[in-house]
Amino acid sequence: VTGRVRTALLGAGRIGLMHAGIIADSVSEIELACVADPDPRAREMARPWAKKTSGSWESVIADRSIQAVMICSATPAHEPQVLAAIEAGKQIFCEKPLAGTLAGALRCANAAARAGVILQVGFNRRYDPSFAALAQAIKQGTLGTPLSIRIISRDPEPPPHSYPRGPGGIYFDSSCHDFDMARYLMREEVTAVASFGSALFDARARVEGDLDIVTVALQFSSGAVGSVETCRTSAAGYDQRAEVHGTKGAMRVENPSTLAIESWNAAGRQRPVNPWFFTERYAEAYRDQLRSFARALSGAPPEVTADDGWAAIALAEAAAQAQAEERVVEVAEVIRAAQACLKETRSNEE
Amino acid sequence: VTGRVRTALLGAGRIGLMHAGIIADSVSEIELACVADPDPRAREMARPWAKKTSGSWESVIADRSIQAVMICSATPAHEPQVLAAIEAGKQIFCEKPLAGTLAGALRCANAAARAGVILQVGFNRRYDPSFAALAQAIKQGTLGTPLSIRIISRDPEPPPHSYPRGPGGIYFDSSCHDFDMARYLMREEVTAVASFGSALFDARARVEGDLDIVTVALQFSSGAVGSVETCRTSAAGYDQRAEVHGTKGAMRVENPSTLAIESWNAAGRQRPVNPWFFTERYAEAYRDQLRSFARALSGAPPEVTADDGWAAIALAEAAAQAQAEERVVEVAEVIRAAQACLKETRSNEE
Amino acid sequence: VTGRVRTALLGAGRIGLMHAGIIADSVSEIELACVADPDPRAREMARPWAKKTSGSWESVIADRSIQAVMICSATPAHEPQVLAAIEAGKQIFCEKPLAGTLAGALRCANAAARAGVILQVGFNRRYDPSFAALAQAIKQGTLGTPLSIRIISRDPEPPPHSYPRGPGGIYFDSSCHDFDMARYLMREEVTAVASFGSALFDARARVEGDLDIVTVALQFSSGAVGSVETCRTSAAGYDQRAEVHGTKGAMRVENPSTLAIESWNAAGRQRPVNPWFFTERYAEAYRDQLRSFARALSGAPPEVTADDGWAAIALAEAAAQAQAEERVVEVAEVIRAAQACLKETRSNEE
Amino acid sequence: VTGRVRTALLGAGRIGLMHAGIIADSVSEIELACVADPDPRAREMARPWAKKTSGSWESVIADRSIQAVMICSATPAHEPQVLAAIEAGKQIFCEKPLAGTLAGALRCANAAARAGVILQVGFNRRYDPSFAALAQAIKQGTLGTPLSIRIISRDPEPPPHSYPRGPGGIYFDSSCHDFDMARYLMREEVTAVASFGSALFDARARVEGDLDIVTVALQFSSGAVGSVETCRTSAAGYDQRAEVHGTKGAMRVENPSTLAIESWNAAGRQRPVNPWFFTERYAEAYRDQLRSFARALSGAPPEVTADDGWAAIALAEAAAQAQAEERVVEVAEVIRAAQACLKETRSNEE
Repeated sequence: VTGRVRTALLGAGRIGLMHAGIIADSVSEIELACVADPDPRAREMARPWAKKTSGSWESVIADRSIQAVMICSATPAHEPQVLAAIEAGKQIFCEKPLAGTLAGALRCANAAARAGVILQVGFNRRYDPSFAALAQAIKQGTLGTPLSIRIISRDPEPPPHSYPRGPGGIYFDSSCHDFDMARYLMREEVTAVASFGSALFDARARVEGDLDIVTVALQFSSGAVGSVETCRTSAAGYDQRAEVHGTKGAMRVENPSTLAIESWNAAGRQRPVNPWFFTERYAEAYRDQLRSFARALSGAPPEVTADDGWAAIALAEAAAQAQAEERVVEVAEVIRAAQACLKETRSNEE
Repeated sequence: VTGRVRTALLGAGRIGLMHAGIIADSVSEIELACVADPDPRAREMARPWAKKTSGSWESVIADRSIQAVMICSATPAHEPQVLAAIEAGKQIFCEKPLAGTLAGALRCANAAARAGVILQVGFNRRYDPSFAALAQAIKQGTLGTPLSIRIISRDPEPPPHSYPRGPGGIYFDSSCHDFDMARYLMREEVTAVASFGSALFDARARVEGDLDIVTVALQFSSGAVGSVETCRTSAAGYDQRAEVHGTKGAMRVENPSTLAIESWNAAGRQRPVNPWFFTERYAEAYRDQLRSFARALSGAPPEVTADDGWAAIALAEAAAQAQAEERVVEVAEVIRAAQACLKETRSNEE
Repeated sequence: VTGRVRTALLGAGRIGLMHAGIIADSVSEIELACVADPDPRAREMARPWAKKTSGSWESVIADRSIQAVMICSATPAHEPQVLAAIEAGKQIFCEKPLAGTLAGALRCANAAARAGVILQVGFNRRYDPSFAALAQAIKQGTLGTPLSIRIISRDPEPPPHSYPRGPGGIYFDSSCHDFDMARYLMREEVTAVASFGSALFDARARVEGDLDIVTVALQFSSGAVGSVETCRTSAAGYDQRAEVHGTKGAMRVENPSTLAIESWNAAGRQRPVNPWFFTERYAEAYRDQLRSFARALSGAPPEVTADDGWAAIALAEAAAQAQAEERVVEVAEVIRAAQACLKETRSNEE
Repeated sequence: VTGRVRTALLGAGRIGLMHAGIIADSVSEIELACVADPDPRAREMARPWAKKTSGSWESVIADRSIQAVMICSATPAHEPQVLAAIEAGKQIFCEKPLAGTLAGALRCANAAARAGVILQVGFNRRYDPSFAALAQAIKQGTLGTPLSIRIISRDPEPPPHSYPRGPGGIYFDSSCHDFDMARYLMREEVTAVASFGSALFDARARVEGDLDIVTVALQFSSGAVGSVETCRTSAAGYDQRAEVHGTKGAMRVENPSTLAIESWNAAGRQRPVNPWFFTERYAEAYRDQLRSFARALSGAPPEVTADDGWAAIALAEAAAQAQAEERVVEVAEVIRAAQACLKETRSNEE
């Protein structure tokens, strides 16, 4: 098939398989040439979507016929896979977070910039039509000068037992989306954060040092302020909202309804629960995200970049420190520290 | 491809092309073998969906390799096409209304029953998840004994200039869906109707004898009552709602939101307009309707039958008479008249 | 006390006592000089509101120091009390319905017009701020040309055991408010009606010949159409809504919330039940209605007149006939009949 | 009049006059014996509510016939008036904030406790039926274990030009209500806070060192977290909401609607603006607050105490410090500092 970009999927877990299905159904510009996963069962599940599977991502990256990779592996694998793919001159879509540390994310972004390859990070929420409408309203000035943003993200349940829960993990794997939303919607950078958090209901989070409920206060460069709440439980299903308040008005994104019905009886007036989790709520957004990647592959400027990838991680690192050390953390401070660490690694390597 | 039902589409107007697209994208059990339309431009537009096109529906029905037909032509063509397809032993999906008159619809239903072929009528709204949830609640007794039903259907704008607007046309081409909803949701028959209507804003309706706003009062066999409003304009976009009120509670289907956003400013609190028209609102329902037809083709009992097709037309005929003659019309009366007319036609033919 | 209008209350049932309380709390222009009720217990309950009570309304009307009366007795007493009060030159507020028959209502209206006294009828819903906002929008043309009106009125439960339930009673004691709303909001007259109704859950209604659920189709003089549903049960509490749809937009009055809260849990998203019944929902409206009467007493043009009183009864009579005789009834026909009956009574009296 | 508590109002500004009106209309247990205000115009406006007025609050407190005082003067006067009233053995209702500093508030609370007089602080929002329903749900465990609280308070416009705007002023005069809500709803204490804030639209706030938009992150003793946003502008009118999220569900208080209407047109679906400001929104709550004070005067345990008064100020002081010094502030730390300051003052006085 001429013109379709031969793409390999690295990592065939839940999110990887979802992307494979989307490509097959809705992104005709991309050809899923190969799926790599060390786990034979995962490869088996990926078989309907790709003619070839492999147990070794290294060999896939070595394959010169592969033009692009979609990295959907576990977080610790992101950085080595991204760097190897850049080295091999491939175009890259990488699930968030771009890397497990800010230094790692900066290293990836720097390498991609030098090599001139696309490195799009998987911030799917930007492609949700409601969040996009909010972004548009702010950009067009409908709300006047933005004064504050408030973001709520509550998963319906804690991640599976096997999912790693290191200290501050929630900021990197979950709030990271919220931090991207904060930057994307407000169109400016966060300069300082403070955060409180606890492990109140997820026993494994407590054991492994992670948190299950956090609040983060944000200071923006313009003087605007914000708050983010990230939580790993929500009885009513996936709960992701955002509100921006400005001098001329406020706009909020609410949870969409699964059904347009209302029931009225002696107990009150009921509406249905929220869509249960991200695959239900963001089906359209995940599709439009890969269509955006396909456009970038054919020359359009990428809409979400490696810089967005590391900027969200900088906020995660700042928030995790702020919570652990019970203080206000300047974002510039964590960026400087990561850059120093990068420099040191480089001198050690020389 | 083994096992796919070779199907021909008769009529490649807006709704026909929509069905063709749905089959290609989402109903793998059906193969669109041919599209027939007298208009070369329509055939041209259908080309992406079907390998073969034809200007003559008669020759398509004569083609023995065709196993099923989807009738999406203009209303006057429905009856002859349905009867010819039955004669040729084909399975049939027919857009509503099943025929232009009640006698014609009864003739189709009788013929299909004798021949033992499927004759599914296109009442897509039954496949909308919100209306289906309302139907389910009533069936399960959640609302107690149903006492009343209220249905509103407002198109965003009158049909195109070229669309025929005969006397009572609105009851046949538009309220017809509402009458099917009334029977489907209430799970019983309407026994009598009264109706008022006018042509207040659509100049062509006035000229050609049609109405653009009607209200219909319904009497059900159990004693429950109902009302239907059908209108050919709606400034806020397609407006289709239904509410059933019972002894234990009420449930209503509201218009879905295109976006889950709210804007607040000095003018009040705004939510977005409704989806503009049926293709936006019922995309999912149209797909699930054809999947249901595919299930029927492979042996499942058809979910919407020719009997549903003529029953809705009986209500349209009763409502049109009630409005024209300013009286209450018993539904049994119009059915008896149509049966008498059928008998007469048959004796004339003998 | 100079300047306060010495007023007598005839009938100290639930609604009478409510009015007495409102006057005491919020209508300083009116002095409740006396309460008349044949029932000693009712007089006892009225004592906190009035210095004097009486068992005989006739003697109260004979009292020349009484300047105005508020008639809150049972419906059959309305006409004689209104006529006697007019005869005695008193100003009158009368609870709806103005009389038990259309002929009676016309007789009252004619007498009041001849005598030049105020005869304001208790259509409290006009004073509800939400219904008033809808009326205002229509008057100002915000909705364009009105095309249809839809009114729902559901009481939380049937009236007490003792309440009379004659044939067609629901149209006179309940739909009567809805008919006034239809005229008030649409700013034009209803010319014809059709109606279906049943007794489905209120055993006493069935025994005594009344209905508990009715739907009424309305034809307006402009060609606009409408529907009214009146029902004597509602599991979610008092349910009174109205919607007007016009060429430029639609506006609907929903049930107000008792509390501005939403609960979200595994069962969905809940809002509180409606206010239970009319005294909760229309507290403000009842107060503003009496303030309007007070303004009329001091010379302002009455906002609700005896003509509004008989016009609503004409619709009740037309709807009751339409239901009983299963036909469309012209409103002019029932008015002519009532006028003929009035004339006949007068010739008999001469 | 026997049994009514002879009460003096100190301060006849907007809020003082509102209380005077409420007492006259709805709190029969309290007699407004006197109003004191240095401003003759304010005294003039208070005349309808009180037989006596005075220019000197000191002489009013010296009046032995006065049994209770309602302190509605400017914040700096609260502490001296409270202390003098306690000295004179009077019962006290004091508008928030109880005092201009935490040390002052503690001094008042200690003095009231020693004297055994009532010192109820004006946290009217506790008496709003919606916030009370949320409090009740939490208390009853409907939401499971509370995990987070989110409070938004946006005034429709900045305070009048003349209103003082000292550094941190917004935390004391505005967020103070939100801090009380946080403690009241969560039923536990806040242990640490962080805050960001700016002066973005209110030129006077910038000049005088105050802020007009702040966000405060809260850490509770149980590990639950929270956030408060206080802002001095809101285009859609007074915007006060709260949401508590727990392991079994979430509940939120939304802004009530002034009217139960919805408009639908080409621009979307509109609902009316919020009630404009506190007197509209909390009319009922202000009345119920004074009825609660009346119950306390007749022996019931006060529902809002001087301890609630100083606890909210402790949070205001902590938040103001946190913002100014860009750090996390432990609430215990500011309380210790205030107590040290109190002790020092006392030793200086000895």
